[in-house]
Amino acid sequence: MGRTLTYPKRDINTVKRYAHRATYDVAAIHTIINLSQVLHVSFSPGPEDPFPATIPMIGQMGSFEYPSADLGEPLDCYIHGYVSARMANLARQSEEGLPVCISASKVDGLVLSLTPYNHSYNYRSAILHGYAKLVTDEEEKMWAMKVITDSVVPSRWDNSRTPPDKGELASTSILRVKIVAGSGKIRDGYASDDKKDYQNDELTSRVWTGVVPVYEVLGEPVPNPDNKVAEVPGYIQSYVDGYTKKSKDYALGATKVTLPKEEQH
Amino acid sequence: MGRTLTYPKRDINTVKRYAHRATYDVAAIHTIINLSQVLHVSFSPGPEDPFPATIPMIGQMGSFEYPSADLGEPLDCYIHGYVSARMANLARQSEEGLPVCISASKVDGLVLSLTPYNHSYNYRSAILHGYAKLVTDEEEKMWAMKVITDSVVPSRWDNSRTPPDKGELASTSILRVKIVAGSGKIRDGYASDDKKDYQNDELTSRVWTGVVPVYEVLGEPVPNPDNKVAEVPGYIQSYVDGYTKKSKDYALGATKVTLPKEEQH
Repeated sequence: MGRTLTYPKRDINTVKRYAHRATYDVAAIHTIINLSQVLHVSFSPGPEDPFPATIPMIGQMGSFEYPSADLGEPLDCYIHGYVSARMANLARQSEEGLPVCISASKVDGLVLSLTPYNHSYNYRSAILHGYAKLVTDEEEKMWAMKVITDSVVPSRWDNSRTPPDKGELASTSILRVKIVAGSGKIRDGYASDDKKDYQNDELTSRVWTGVVPVYEVLGEPVPNPDNKVAEVPGYIQSYVDGYTKKSKDYALGATKVTLPKEEQH
Repeated sequence: MGRTLTYPKRDINTVKRYAHRATYDVAAIHTIINLSQVLHVSFSPGPEDPFPATIPMIGQMGSFEYPSADLGEPLDCYIHGYVSARMANLARQSEEGLPVCISASKVDGLVLSLTPYNHSYNYRSAILHGYAKLVTDEEEKMWAMKVITDSVVPSRWDNSRTPPDKGELASTSILRVKIVAGSGKIRDGYASDDKKDYQNDELTSRVWTGVVPVYEVLGEPVPNPDNKVAEVPGYIQSYVDGYTKKSKDYALGATKVTLPKEEQH
């Protein structure tokens, strides 16, 4: 109650640079994962292949055991996408599952300073390390499919043809990742420069500095050629409008954040 | 002349599902990498750590040797970001460099079909495998810094304080990745459903189907509190306007693409 859970700082997930921008706060990290439309999931295929494999997937944090758990609590990451035979075999081979690294990033602004060296992005990124197992329990799989579907458009599950039939259920792969470490990084605020540059009048008189906000928009829904529902339903339209507003507000808000003391001048 | 180069189909980069959406076309893959504001770069830290490490970085395809090479030609991937001591050591240890997997994804639309099973995204994604080495040649490093800076806002290099000084150059890490394999996936078009669902009148009369376009917007530039240039310069404003238009046009265009025959009904 009132606690703020943090992921343990282990060597593998200690953010070493710009420590004031790092976060180990579980709620902050889970929030970044959940708002990302795509997660990049990496694993090592084995000793014969030196290259990690990375697959773009879709996923959400959640707890099947405690479905009402909030984002600040320990959660699993449920992911869906193309699980290759190789990946599935690796996940089955070991008792604890396949070690994976899940990453998500969102750019919120282009930070233009006086010199390229101090250019940056406003951004939010999160990294999770955990062990992935294929979900085999039908009830858990169905629960995860609902959570993931509703992350695309809230209430879509209840407003489409559900439940999936036997064949659909069998050919859908869901991985449950038990998280063992996590970290996040958040950069916001305006551009920052070094003394030698911001005290150079010739330079400041000719170089524009500031932030170009970057945000994602959901456009007006485009009906399918064979769609038979005349109006865009309210649950879709209100999500579209809300998404764009939230995304824009965040990016604009991020430009106005006061920088930490060590970056001010 | 007139050739279309493709990456070789090797086991490690053969896209096994939805083959009609896969591309090995070098120009298409390089284009996806170059338009991505963030690249996810993964490597295996070594036998003592089972988790791949993934770092969000910024990068561009290019050739230092043939700077005028176009996107359809063999290119290196130059990436910049926080290179940890561990990553730098691994890149130095072997003659050929550190094996990395570079991935980039962009969502262009939420594809809402009659049943969650057929939901999808319109998207573009690319994966590259290659060997990363730290760039040590000063001229090459400077060239790469210009290419990467101008990928954030074209002409920004020439319109800010350049060149970087000795100290800035020394503390900037640039990796050159020699690409050995690549693949891409592109999904566009409207929603697709199975016969049992689209012939179900009760279902089609109540479930809206179609695509919600997703695109990235650059907002009005927000000047720094200490910015002294009264007007947003033309090269920034025109990039902002062009970016948003291009991004929106792509997402809207993608909703209208006719599906491949095997997905039509």
